[in-house]
Amino acid sequence: MFSRFRRAERKGSVPSVVVLGGGYGGVYAALELQGAAKRGEIKLTLISRENFFLFQPMLAEVISGSISPLNVVSPIRRIVPHAQVHQAEVESVDTGSRTVAIRYPGHARLTTISYDHLIFAVGSATNLSQFPGVEEHGMSFKTLGDAFRLRNHLISMLEAANVEDDPFYKMQALTFVIAGGGYTGVEVTSEINEFLRVASRSYRNVNPEDFRVILLHRSGRILPELGEKLANLSHRLLERRGIYIRLHAELKGATGQSALLADEVYIPTKTLVATIGASPNPILADLPCETERGRLVVDETLAVKGGENLWAVGDCALVPDVLRGGFCPPTAQFALREAKSAAQNVLATIRGTPTKHFRYKSRGVFVPLGGFAAATEAFGLEMSGFLAWWLYRTFYLLQLPRLERKLRVVTDWTLDLIFPPDIVKVDIERPRGTSRRHYEAGEYIYRKGDIAYEFYVVLTGEVEVLREEDGRESGVAKLGVGEYFGEMSLLNSAPHASSVRAKTSAQILVMTGEDFLALASSSSLFGDMLREVVERRVTINAANQSKER
Amino acid sequence: MFSRFRRAERKGSVPSVVVLGGGYGGVYAALELQGAAKRGEIKLTLISRENFFLFQPMLAEVISGSISPLNVVSPIRRIVPHAQVHQAEVESVDTGSRTVAIRYPGHARLTTISYDHLIFAVGSATNLSQFPGVEEHGMSFKTLGDAFRLRNHLISMLEAANVEDDPFYKMQALTFVIAGGGYTGVEVTSEINEFLRVASRSYRNVNPEDFRVILLHRSGRILPELGEKLANLSHRLLERRGIYIRLHAELKGATGQSALLADEVYIPTKTLVATIGASPNPILADLPCETERGRLVVDETLAVKGGENLWAVGDCALVPDVLRGGFCPPTAQFALREAKSAAQNVLATIRGTPTKHFRYKSRGVFVPLGGFAAATEAFGLEMSGFLAWWLYRTFYLLQLPRLERKLRVVTDWTLDLIFPPDIVKVDIERPRGTSRRHYEAGEYIYRKGDIAYEFYVVLTGEVEVLREEDGRESGVAKLGVGEYFGEMSLLNSAPHASSVRAKTSAQILVMTGEDFLALASSSSLFGDMLREVVERRVTINAANQSKER
Repeated sequence: MFSRFRRAERKGSVPSVVVLGGGYGGVYAALELQGAAKRGEIKLTLISRENFFLFQPMLAEVISGSISPLNVVSPIRRIVPHAQVHQAEVESVDTGSRTVAIRYPGHARLTTISYDHLIFAVGSATNLSQFPGVEEHGMSFKTLGDAFRLRNHLISMLEAANVEDDPFYKMQALTFVIAGGGYTGVEVTSEINEFLRVASRSYRNVNPEDFRVILLHRSGRILPELGEKLANLSHRLLERRGIYIRLHAELKGATGQSALLADEVYIPTKTLVATIGASPNPILADLPCETERGRLVVDETLAVKGGENLWAVGDCALVPDVLRGGFCPPTAQFALREAKSAAQNVLATIRGTPTKHFRYKSRGVFVPLGGFAAATEAFGLEMSGFLAWWLYRTFYLLQLPRLERKLRVVTDWTLDLIFPPDIVKVDIERPRGTSRRHYEAGEYIYRKGDIAYEFYVVLTGEVEVLREEDGRESGVAKLGVGEYFGEMSLLNSAPHASSVRAKTSAQILVMTGEDFLALASSSSLFGDMLREVVERRVTINAANQSKER
Repeated sequence: MFSRFRRAERKGSVPSVVVLGGGYGGVYAALELQGAAKRGEIKLTLISRENFFLFQPMLAEVISGSISPLNVVSPIRRIVPHAQVHQAEVESVDTGSRTVAIRYPGHARLTTISYDHLIFAVGSATNLSQFPGVEEHGMSFKTLGDAFRLRNHLISMLEAANVEDDPFYKMQALTFVIAGGGYTGVEVTSEINEFLRVASRSYRNVNPEDFRVILLHRSGRILPELGEKLANLSHRLLERRGIYIRLHAELKGATGQSALLADEVYIPTKTLVATIGASPNPILADLPCETERGRLVVDETLAVKGGENLWAVGDCALVPDVLRGGFCPPTAQFALREAKSAAQNVLATIRGTPTKHFRYKSRGVFVPLGGFAAATEAFGLEMSGFLAWWLYRTFYLLQLPRLERKLRVVTDWTLDLIFPPDIVKVDIERPRGTSRRHYEAGEYIYRKGDIAYEFYVVLTGEVEVLREEDGRESGVAKLGVGEYFGEMSLLNSAPHASSVRAKTSAQILVMTGEDFLALASSSSLFGDMLREVVERRVTINAANQSKER
């Protein structure tokens, strides 16, 4: 088989290995292949949506600020300098012509890249469409941006609660709901809880007793990834820290005012973190290969079944567990080992040497629980508390790529032992443009007298315009799909003259007043249409008023 | 006069001192007043747009990452724990009733706060309306968000240039224009230049010789804030580092493709940093007090002329320079001293002791020039190079509030000496909603064959739809104010069938395809209108085609 490799070399055609994905699987596969790329044995290409590798196990610590946001990520180009790195979206894979179509951010054309071997490490996607309103009002927790936004949001809630007089709204601001009691959910819950309790010391009107941090989990025990004993231990530790755990609690939807459970219970909150809804990466759907529950089925060598020169690792692959039967769990530890194994098998195939079966047994698992404590099941031992936490930190620190990052993280941790967590809120996002909101029946979009700074279009459902008389509110008009409101107060720069409330569950498109006014004043078509709407509304109001007389 | 103070105390009415602004002036005024607040002599309130204090002199270092973004800011509540801090926007000041109306973020109602003494430290605003397109396509450099966005943008440009084959577009991506050669402009230019040269080592297809960093300044010499000798020295040092300085160059406007100068010169670039357009804070316009060029005129004690119990410091105040005649410059050093002086005079007025005149002579000025070099004029000495740079760092480090931040910044600097700058690009902003773009005549909005993912409305000017035949383009339709385009390709999910180009200078409102489709599919009014537009367009096309035959 050695002759095949030499033939390829003679032709001058170096085989092209393309890795899709810049997460655990993709980066560790590229690391394993880098030596061969350096020697010129292969041409190595990595395609990643971000130009950095996110060290997922430390992401939750960004919430409390015990690690600075930029220190949990590392530039991919620096990790794998011998790979050609493309920061781009994968648009499609053509297994016939052995090409991948990618798109650079801001580019209006696709670029095509050829491969001889292709490693899928694209992870999973999140699909929240079955939970109405969660996409609009819930927060996910997968990316660095997510962690940053959540942190800013928590500080906003402290700021808001600090100046809120109404006990209901204060309670709402200080209620934090996390949906999904898996590994990520538990980690996020612990960090949120820890951060709030320490940060609240800087807010005069916020007491630690006012917090309600609620973890929702649909089945009978949290942490299904772990053994029952460790899960129960973690459960008890979380409760001891003041976290409410609701088992058998299924999230149904969300609005800007509350989280809605399947048993029609509403939890008034402005903070819903959804760690649920994992779904297959859409790029896999069109492949002519075997998939199961959206994951690529691979054999023991991590080759995709029904594919040629295709390999898959991590969350996007269904990997048989040679040692214990069944399938490997979708965790970072397994992704890392699968990536190494797949990379070695790619090289073996190119060189014509035998491929090997993937076999790995997890050596330990850690659950960080906040406040210098963790629970662990490592090297056959089960323990919790400070020692477990120290082991957990050391274990991940050793795994963190690049010396510089190790130093920075150690510094962060050291300062974190001495100083309280940061409460700086950085508004990176510029408020502008359009967004969507979900309302449940009875919720107010705005109240009479509120400052008008937005324009609204009903996308689904129905809302009603209310008039107040002698302290009683009554509906004066109903607005359905495609109808607009809020425009009159914007055009007159006056506070809202009436309240608007959702009559049914409704989705509303919201446009900033500035953009709306730009459209209305310069677009004759849009303007004409609006004038019509305004006139019609005035007529309706007049008719209603004369009826009442 | 001591009796007045005791009388107030007997009545139980502690005088309320309100500080507007969380910048240098506001925070240092509050620091000076904090002792009196702690003793219960006054009630101290600080109103700030952000919940943190931004240490402006270190902001530029966020660009190169030599200081981590969160380390140049410090939570205001931690700096002045004895003040009541409101994170809110100031909406208006009523000097008659002695109240300030503020608005908390996300609140639809105003909150009123009473004062006995009011200190204005609201700084200046930026007004770019005289430079068409600069608001849309230029980047400002005042806030932490600005620094973060600029840093991300620079990395985007490196990523884009790395994969660009067309020499023109590559040159455009590697051209960086900074408008305004004042202190901020020079600092930003140095940091951009330094960052690019070091970061480019991780990009295989980008050479340091390809960069063009261009500083535009409207008058005959940069750094008008400094003495001529120091300014000339800095000028030479910048040029030696490869920066192009264009004097007598006035920015006129910008598009997404280029910066436009007053002499009709276009510089093709995707990066324009505008440090120009300083304008009065609008909150001052409605005050019944003396203003000059939008700044509040104060007397030697920093009391606002024509106001009662009103004080002003920093960029929003026109402060007479007692020592040298004329007025004090709007720099951070002066703001800091003015703040202390005003705070002492407020306390003196409350206690009935004599107020004092403000007198301060600047002891030194530093211009950081990147690459471990600075120019300085401190303690009567003029120097440049490494020693100046070391003095500059030490000087500002000592001024940085709070020990924790000092430690963190020193750590950042130490690691920065050893490791190359970070090239992690964090996309915090979610791409969504609407935005505006400015095009100059002849620029393309999109080209035939481009992927369609946006919808466009002409806000000002005119665009033309082009058809290509035998390699030649000809206009087939003109679209004016209020007209739409791009909708057909979106509705058909097809690439654009024709190109669209600006016929005159034009402002375009851009909506994401997703939002457009949501509107079009669920809004019957909007949908009807669109169907009409589409039909009309088809008729025009058919008419044009039949004419040609």
